[in-house]
Amino acid sequence: MIEEKIESLGIKLPAELKTIGSYVPVVITSNNLVFVSGQIPLDSQLAPVQLRYKGKVGKSVSIDDARHAAKLCVINALGHIRSIIGTLDNIKKFVKISGFVNCESSFTDHPKVINGASDFILEVFGEKGRHTRVAVGTNSLPLDSPVEVDMIVEIY
Amino acid sequence: MIEEKIESLGIKLPAELKTIGSYVPVVITSNNLVFVSGQIPLDSQLAPVQLRYKGKVGKSVSIDDARHAAKLCVINALGHIRSIIGTLDNIKKFVKISGFVNCESSFTDHPKVINGASDFILEVFGEKGRHTRVAVGTNSLPLDSPVEVDMIVEIY
Amino acid sequence: MIEEKIESLGIKLPAELKTIGSYVPVVITSNNLVFVSGQIPLDSQLAPVQLRYKGKVGKSVSIDDARHAAKLCVINALGHIRSIIGTLDNIKKFVKISGFVNCESSFTDHPKVINGASDFILEVFGEKGRHTRVAVGTNSLPLDSPVEVDMIVEIY
Repeated sequence: MIEEKIESLGIKLPAELKTIGSYVPVVITSNNLVFVSGQIPLDSQLAPVQLRYKGKVGKSVSIDDARHAAKLCVINALGHIRSIIGTLDNIKKFVKISGFVNCESSFTDHPKVINGASDFILEVFGEKGRHTRVAVGTNSLPLDSPVEVDMIVEIY
Repeated sequence: MIEEKIESLGIKLPAELKTIGSYVPVVITSNNLVFVSGQIPLDSQLAPVQLRYKGKVGKSVSIDDARHAAKLCVINALGHIRSIIGTLDNIKKFVKISGFVNCESSFTDHPKVINGASDFILEVFGEKGRHTRVAVGTNSLPLDSPVEVDMIVEIY
Repeated sequence: MIEEKIESLGIKLPAELKTIGSYVPVVITSNNLVFVSGQIPLDSQLAPVQLRYKGKVGKSVSIDDARHAAKLCVINALGHIRSIIGTLDNIKKFVKISGFVNCESSFTDHPKVINGASDFILEVFGEKGRHTRVAVGTNSLPLDSPVEVDMIVEIY
C-alpha cells in the first residue's frame, strides 16, 4: 500500500492545504486523468504552515535545498490527490510533471533540482511512477518560492 | 445559458481572432478534452484588434491592469472555444489553466494577477468553472504581453 | 508514410537519445494521449550527441538558429515517439506543444522562434499536424539550451 510506503519513509502527507488563489487543487477528467495544481514547498510540519524555502536557487537557496523543496511539492500534490481519491493505491500511473525553478539567468542545473521531485516519485511508486517531465527556469515564482511543480496522473 | 450570462456582464466574445504563429487556437481530443492555445490580452473592442496592455507587471503594468489582462485572455479563449464547439453550454467542466506573468525577478504576486482569470471563470461558470492552475513568472512574453493564459476544458 | 516523408526532407530521426534526469521520454495514457518530455536541441548527428546551440536567443543565438533549434526539439520528440509506438503513422493528431525560449527580458519574438517547431510539424504531418501552442520566454533553461519544446499527440 502506497500510504504505508510513504509512512515508512518518515513522511506525513498533508491533509488540508489551502490553495493560494481562486482555484482548486485537483480536477479529475471523465477519462481518469487527475490534474493537480502547481505546488510550492509549503511544509505542513511547520506551524503555521509556511514555505520551507524561499528565494532563488543557486543564490539564496542551495541546489540540495531546492531538491528537497521539489520533493515537498510532490508530497503536497500527493496529499491533495489522496484527499480527493481516497487512497494513492488508486493511481494507475504517473503521466507528467512540470517543474519551474526560480533562478538567476545564468543557472543551468534545473534537471538536478527537479530530480528531487522525480526521484521521490520513483522511490514511492516504482514502475507506476515513471513520468514525463518538463523542467524550465523562471525569473520569479509566487511568494518567492524556489520551485513549483504540477502533475498529471491517471487513476483506475 | 452561458452566452447570456457573459452578455449580461457587458462582455462581447471575440469572433475571429487570429493566432500569431503557425498553430491553431483549439484542438479537441477524441475523449472530449479541449486544448486552447496560450492567449494574450488582445482587445477585440479596439480597432484594429491589439494588445490592451503591454509591458512588465509591477513595473509598467499595474496589478489591477494585469488582472484585467488575465480576464481578457479568458474572454479570448472562450471566443475560440465557442467558434469551434458552437455554444459554451457544451462545456462540462474546466480542467486547468496555466498563467504566465511577465515581470521583474523580484515579483511575487503572480496569484493575484492570475486570479483575474480564475475569478472570471468562476463568475461565469460557477461549479463547472472550478479548475486547477499553475501560475508562474517569466522574464518575457510574445509582443511584450503582460500575461499569457492557456486552458484545458472538457466538453460533453 | 510519415517516416518516408521525413527521410525525403534529409532528416534522420534519432534512435536512442537519453533523458537528462530521472524521467522517461514518453508516457501513453489509457486514452491514447502521448505525452512527450521537454526536448532540447541535442543533435544526434554530432558525435558525441550534444546541444547544437547554446545560449540566449537574441543574444548569443540568432532567431534563425533558434528556429532550427526548435525544429531539432521536434525531431527528437518524434524519435522518442517512434521508439515507443513503432511508426509515426500511428499518430492520429497533434494536440499541443509548449515552447520555452531562453532569452533576455526585452525579447518579444517568441512566436517566430517556436514557429520553427510548428512549421516543421505542419510540413510533415499536414492536417494532422494542426496543434495548439503556448510560447513563452524564460530567463534560463537546462544546460543553457536556447529552447525547450514538449508535446502531446493522440494516437489511434
